[in-house]
Amino acid sequence: MSDRPKTPFLDRVKSPADLKGLSDADLHRVAEELRAETISAVSETGGHLGAGLGVVELTVALHAVFDTPRDRLIWDVSHQSYPHKILTGRRDRIRTLRQKGGLSGFTKRSESPYDPFGAAHSSTSISAALGFAVARDLGGQPDYGLGDAIAVIGDGAISAGMAYEAMNNAGHLGKRLIVILNDNEMSIAPPVGAMSSYLSRLYAGAPFQDFKAIAKGAVSFLPPPFQEGARRAKDLLKHMTIGGTLFEEMGFSYVGPIDGHDLDQILPVLRAVKARADGPILIHAITRKGKGYAPAEEAADRGHGVSKFDVITGEQKKAASNAPSYTKVFARALMAQAEADDRVCAVTAAMPDGTGLNLFAEKFPKRCFDVGIAEQHGVTFSAGLAAGGLRPFCAIYSTFLQRGYDQVVHDVAIQRLPVRFAIDRAGLVGADGATHAGAFDVAFLANLPGFTVMAAADEAELVHMVATAAAHDEGPIAFRYPRGEGEGVEMPEKGELLEIGKGRMIAEGRQVALLSFGTRLGEVRKAAEALGAKGITPTIADARFAKPLDRDLILKLAAEHEALITIEEGAIGGFGSHVAQLLAEEGVFDRGLKYRSMVLPDTFIDQASPKDMYDVAALNAEHIEAKVLAVLGEETARAANA
Amino acid sequence: MSDRPKTPFLDRVKSPADLKGLSDADLHRVAEELRAETISAVSETGGHLGAGLGVVELTVALHAVFDTPRDRLIWDVSHQSYPHKILTGRRDRIRTLRQKGGLSGFTKRSESPYDPFGAAHSSTSISAALGFAVARDLGGQPDYGLGDAIAVIGDGAISAGMAYEAMNNAGHLGKRLIVILNDNEMSIAPPVGAMSSYLSRLYAGAPFQDFKAIAKGAVSFLPPPFQEGARRAKDLLKHMTIGGTLFEEMGFSYVGPIDGHDLDQILPVLRAVKARADGPILIHAITRKGKGYAPAEEAADRGHGVSKFDVITGEQKKAASNAPSYTKVFARALMAQAEADDRVCAVTAAMPDGTGLNLFAEKFPKRCFDVGIAEQHGVTFSAGLAAGGLRPFCAIYSTFLQRGYDQVVHDVAIQRLPVRFAIDRAGLVGADGATHAGAFDVAFLANLPGFTVMAAADEAELVHMVATAAAHDEGPIAFRYPRGEGEGVEMPEKGELLEIGKGRMIAEGRQVALLSFGTRLGEVRKAAEALGAKGITPTIADARFAKPLDRDLILKLAAEHEALITIEEGAIGGFGSHVAQLLAEEGVFDRGLKYRSMVLPDTFIDQASPKDMYDVAALNAEHIEAKVLAVLGEETARAANA
Repeated sequence: MSDRPKTPFLDRVKSPADLKGLSDADLHRVAEELRAETISAVSETGGHLGAGLGVVELTVALHAVFDTPRDRLIWDVSHQSYPHKILTGRRDRIRTLRQKGGLSGFTKRSESPYDPFGAAHSSTSISAALGFAVARDLGGQPDYGLGDAIAVIGDGAISAGMAYEAMNNAGHLGKRLIVILNDNEMSIAPPVGAMSSYLSRLYAGAPFQDFKAIAKGAVSFLPPPFQEGARRAKDLLKHMTIGGTLFEEMGFSYVGPIDGHDLDQILPVLRAVKARADGPILIHAITRKGKGYAPAEEAADRGHGVSKFDVITGEQKKAASNAPSYTKVFARALMAQAEADDRVCAVTAAMPDGTGLNLFAEKFPKRCFDVGIAEQHGVTFSAGLAAGGLRPFCAIYSTFLQRGYDQVVHDVAIQRLPVRFAIDRAGLVGADGATHAGAFDVAFLANLPGFTVMAAADEAELVHMVATAAAHDEGPIAFRYPRGEGEGVEMPEKGELLEIGKGRMIAEGRQVALLSFGTRLGEVRKAAEALGAKGITPTIADARFAKPLDRDLILKLAAEHEALITIEEGAIGGFGSHVAQLLAEEGVFDRGLKYRSMVLPDTFIDQASPKDMYDVAALNAEHIEAKVLAVLGEETARAANA
Repeated sequence: MSDRPKTPFLDRVKSPADLKGLSDADLHRVAEELRAETISAVSETGGHLGAGLGVVELTVALHAVFDTPRDRLIWDVSHQSYPHKILTGRRDRIRTLRQKGGLSGFTKRSESPYDPFGAAHSSTSISAALGFAVARDLGGQPDYGLGDAIAVIGDGAISAGMAYEAMNNAGHLGKRLIVILNDNEMSIAPPVGAMSSYLSRLYAGAPFQDFKAIAKGAVSFLPPPFQEGARRAKDLLKHMTIGGTLFEEMGFSYVGPIDGHDLDQILPVLRAVKARADGPILIHAITRKGKGYAPAEEAADRGHGVSKFDVITGEQKKAASNAPSYTKVFARALMAQAEADDRVCAVTAAMPDGTGLNLFAEKFPKRCFDVGIAEQHGVTFSAGLAAGGLRPFCAIYSTFLQRGYDQVVHDVAIQRLPVRFAIDRAGLVGADGATHAGAFDVAFLANLPGFTVMAAADEAELVHMVATAAAHDEGPIAFRYPRGEGEGVEMPEKGELLEIGKGRMIAEGRQVALLSFGTRLGEVRKAAEALGAKGITPTIADARFAKPLDRDLILKLAAEHEALITIEEGAIGGFGSHVAQLLAEEGVFDRGLKYRSMVLPDTFIDQASPKDMYDVAALNAEHIEAKVLAVLGEETARAANA
């Protein structure tokens, strides 16, 4: 562990109120120390480094100029909120970031009044801020009162449809609302799309030099506290507006671009905006992700998500991995399919690295489409590709597929178009916590007529499912797999076609059947082993398909066992619910069956290791074992042991 | 029934190929007759009149210039597709529109090769068209080959986030793609938002006169077939581009605005675009919804959705209604709440009339927000309002709430913000068919931790649920109710607070308990009556809540009856699945229980009357009766009768 930095100025800031008395020169020092503290903290916890380093100066300036928490400051996505957390009374816990029981890696309402609206998924901040602005003007009386509403949103996030919808509405309503466009030309991957090119042109067309002079001039006649008359301030805003046509057409005033790392530009601009804005205004700040920490600035992803690292060298401490990640297995399997079939193509919504499609894109650049943070479009675009005779794989995390749900129903399912959904991060995901849990996809897909829904029990199964999906032209098909490493199983030479709607027997036993859907199969095996020591030999089966169900397998298991337990890493409404519906319709319950469905519990589970999260969810081997024992009853269990 | 119009020119057009040989003068006549035929057909069927009348000339011109179905013509929403259907081989069935077994009111892939991508929900056409364009360039080989991809999208629809995402991606990819912006300043309601104002300014800034001269000039040196050289065409496109900055910033060429009812403008522009476009291009056509039929042009909604009508007078033949619609009951109940509590406010996504919020807006204009076709933003905006201390009712049809699903999960549920969701059009909806079915909301809401989910059994219950939701500050709450008229029950003076998570007994019986969730209760009662004549007296209960479940009630019903049947107008994964999970966990199935869950079947159900659709779904009284008889078995039923 590196020595902690000396931070005499930052040490005096217990809350944003302590920034108010500081001179601009002192704010510079606070910013410097805040950057050092952020680097030091993340070196111990791992997490999102580059995003926070890019907004250190913005964070200091916003809290110095505005009156948080009365003024509502909303960080979009909020990977960049670590410096904000340090300044807002959470410095003492900043080294617990993303750990079990520690601070969330995102803003969170329940964590602090300085987090007025939690985030994690992208592009929600302008909508939320507009809600606060309207509530303020209608006399809403939440805790701390209601002042300004400020959204800080990245150039990647602002290019999503949702942010556009919010700007469109904000421009129409005309309420005072402040949007800071944090333009680092980098979301997780470099941003794509026409909006991104547009922003680059704005920057190219109005370099800092010009603006800096104006801002500097502004400083000279705008001593803080900002007190001059209306005319001067309006003139200032007017002069600051260089370019920005697109935002102006949307009804926003536009200020910028400014250097988001230069407090001498940021402070006067924010003061002017605070004093005089009378409608929606967008401040375009150019920043650099990873700013001020060379290893991050030099990394391809600008230090987006890092493991614990050595502050001096920047070297990350990654645990040695024994098995390839599911993500990589998916990518390789898809490349094998694409090699053999030039109709295979792939779509990602701004997550080429996270989905593994960066590997695919290297080999098949013309057949890989990063549509930006645009899941709605991504799904329907995939539907169009399918209708056009291609075989699209639409690779979206479970939690983000929620963004394209209507498109899945309306454009894919109703039209029975053969879009292949590769659903990564299914189940609980660890440090990203509740907002990123892949909990609902089976429930929201398996009740769509004509859909085929699979879950991989291990990485070899995933390879087969990619092959099965590629060959499936009869309608939409989805396969889900978790975050992290595989089970370390032997990998097949090539993917084989699975029979649609057929599961597989893993072990023949008696009394109780454990029917697994997905990667809980490993825990089921462990539970069976422990039960074996107690004289109980469960039957184990892997359902493979939540839809269509393997009716024969399920009815056979029900008929031949006293108890049937389904296990899945998803919420109620998914696999187990479909099994229950089948058993009910077939009259199996009429005669009595000890049926249980183990699903994610009815609660949002905070971040921890996946193992710990599954402990909270009661979906690990010991819980499966306990469920079996409880269901069979002590007597039966004793009898089995006799 | 009015006399059918004489249509000698139209009669010669059996398919779009027949337009190719016609002179422009003859195309004018075809358009005239197509308008008359559309009016005549809709006067017999009812349906969407104004939208089709607004694109008669565009329809003729597009089919005359492009080579459908090889060129893919995609109508956004597709209310406006009736003239297209008449031209594309479906004239003989046009008078079956929206009827059981007849033509769909929307484009539909299974209906015609001229409908390459079905629609109904808004703003999907550019995404789909881009998919076709990319598939073409990658060598996709669907039926009919692949030529141009053309999206026709309204000014309301293009302001949705999804359309923006698609343009952003299209501008980036740079593929040849044609978007026709059908700007009638009217979606269903007058459009709102900054984009709408922007489009108006474009029109104001570049009146037709200027453009018309250019287009007329163009006609003179562009005799069809269009054959002049590249330079001239490029010059033409360049000159046609007046304004349009916003689209140009997105990477589109912009042409317009043109008069969308003037074939002398439309035809040369389309010919020029067809000959020379080499990237994404947007043609801005100004049209008038309801054009050419005075009763529609003069109606406030421009004849958006009409009943059968008299062609001469325009008078619509509406069936006399006995009970107020659920929509109106909701609106009045909400107004009563707003009267008493100034924190109550309302949000609609471009459906003020459909949701009844037009009535609310008249009385409380400052507390009613039409955010445009922007469900994603609408949900998170509501979350912001709730966080700001207000009591927002977010009124979105079940099928459209799918568009804001991630926002429901991420911004509302995880933060436990008290947004009230008023979910109209729950269950099957009649003439709008499968795309508008409210089938999935209970399944996708009831598994969200902390959510409260109600369904009204009748319009009096709806009043109580509005009151209950208004008072519920502990977290998100939703209540669903169907399209159409209420049951005609006595209405309460005022809404009463229902106890959260408690159902109600309707009738005490024996042997079998019927547990209803929602408005199938009426059918359940009818079934019980029929069963009574056979000596079977079912217990009837109304669950009111799918979440939290009334555990005591459900377990009591299970304990005291041989059989328990749940009934709901929703897909699997909803109420019945939650009941099954409870029964399983409590070990009720261990001892045997004849449990059945009646849900929507695993199929998308085509349009018909709601009654007929519920026949297909097997959720009417006779199906409930049959289910009871089957479950109890003939012997039991006979014994009961003895």
